[in-house]
Amino acid sequence: MTGVSGGDSVTLDLLRQKMAEFAKERDWGPYHTPRNLLLALVGEVGELSEIFQWKGEVGRGLPGWSEKEKVHLGEELSDVLLYLVQLSDSCGIDLSSAALRKVQLNALKYPIVNNDD
Amino acid sequence: MTGVSGGDSVTLDLLRQKMAEFAKERDWGPYHTPRNLLLALVGEVGELSEIFQWKGEVGRGLPGWSEKEKVHLGEELSDVLLYLVQLSDSCGIDLSSAALRKVQLNALKYPIVNNDD
Amino acid sequence: MTGVSGGDSVTLDLLRQKMAEFAKERDWGPYHTPRNLLLALVGEVGELSEIFQWKGEVGRGLPGWSEKEKVHLGEELSDVLLYLVQLSDSCGIDLSSAALRKVQLNALKYPIVNNDD
Amino acid sequence: MTGVSGGDSVTLDLLRQKMAEFAKERDWGPYHTPRNLLLALVGEVGELSEIFQWKGEVGRGLPGWSEKEKVHLGEELSDVLLYLVQLSDSCGIDLSSAALRKVQLNALKYPIVNNDD
Repeated sequence: MTGVSGGDSVTLDLLRQKMAEFAKERDWGPYHTPRNLLLALVGEVGELSEIFQWKGEVGRGLPGWSEKEKVHLGEELSDVLLYLVQLSDSCGIDLSSAALRKVQLNALKYPIVNNDD
Repeated sequence: MTGVSGGDSVTLDLLRQKMAEFAKERDWGPYHTPRNLLLALVGEVGELSEIFQWKGEVGRGLPGWSEKEKVHLGEELSDVLLYLVQLSDSCGIDLSSAALRKVQLNALKYPIVNNDD
Repeated sequence: MTGVSGGDSVTLDLLRQKMAEFAKERDWGPYHTPRNLLLALVGEVGELSEIFQWKGEVGRGLPGWSEKEKVHLGEELSDVLLYLVQLSDSCGIDLSSAALRKVQLNALKYPIVNNDD
Repeated sequence: MTGVSGGDSVTLDLLRQKMAEFAKERDWGPYHTPRNLLLALVGEVGELSEIFQWKGEVGRGLPGWSEKEKVHLGEELSDVLLYLVQLSDSCGIDLSSAALRKVQLNALKYPIVNNDD
């Protein structure tokens, strides 16, 4: 997964722009309605699940997986992400702001419990 | 969705860091195995689908949806994103680099057809 | 799961009839389009996944699960089934015949390998 | 979908028996743990969604779909069903009884409203 540099600076908004341009160049706009993109997302989640379906429990870092399997996994994770970005865009939702806000809501919902006292 | 500024600069890596810190502070590490996080992701995709399930076709920009519905949708889109980021992290996959690479692969897979000639 | 007798004779067609009658009595027909029912199915698969999401590996027969958890699981499995039956019906697909045919196709696709020789 | 007769009498228990025998003949038992089967189910729901993803709204009875598309749809609906039956079996849940019970619960949850008065 190291063939592309600059990964640390990839913003959600950059991906949104790239995918919007991608769809525009191919005249895919009419197909990119919210429910079409949602079902495409579900399809990709299915492909992601297929990678894990017969594995039994899998440890963090995927011990024993081949490089080929990891590359494939990265592609399926990306497909889910790219449709999620496009779905958000088709709905007019600012996913970046929504995600930051959700992190804050989660912090309120799950306060840190200090067990040291 | 406007209460949080700076959305345009939100990187996937920032979200990864925030969620890793979040889990660490709550001792959730042992639960955050790849398949656990994958099933949590599927659960959130289900909640996202429930928002759209009885709507019939929905137009781009969600015409007629209330602000409350849009805020709820932003939360569910974010939940999917945050689990996707955590799943990638638990697998040791650099989602940023993988996503950029996938955009390039898609461009090769779906060349632009010029219909103007 | 023992409060209802006669389970062994439950046909898919009986469930189809019950759900069609159920929807008709409530004037839900206009909502029961294929894609609405598909998204409802995805929502139920999400709820099913939530039951398993933080469990780690789970053994056959659910060792250690409470009776309450098993009843809840039976409800979510049923919700998936009932939407699947309704989705098939809304598409005009005879799920019973399709399932029998698919079992036959699977037998051709995955022949029995005799390792005893 | 007409090549297999006797569809009206297909019980869930018959499918359960067929799939249990199928797995046993192929020594697939060790793979058929609850979470493996659940992820396989999610994979099939993904394939089902892919059939509908670029269609826009689809009418009841699938007007305009080819016979080939309908046969393919029947296969994907069946794949979801067969994994659901196997998942239930691996959990020791009697899906037939659970489904009948859930229909009764739904009737209590959603009483019939008589709008004629």
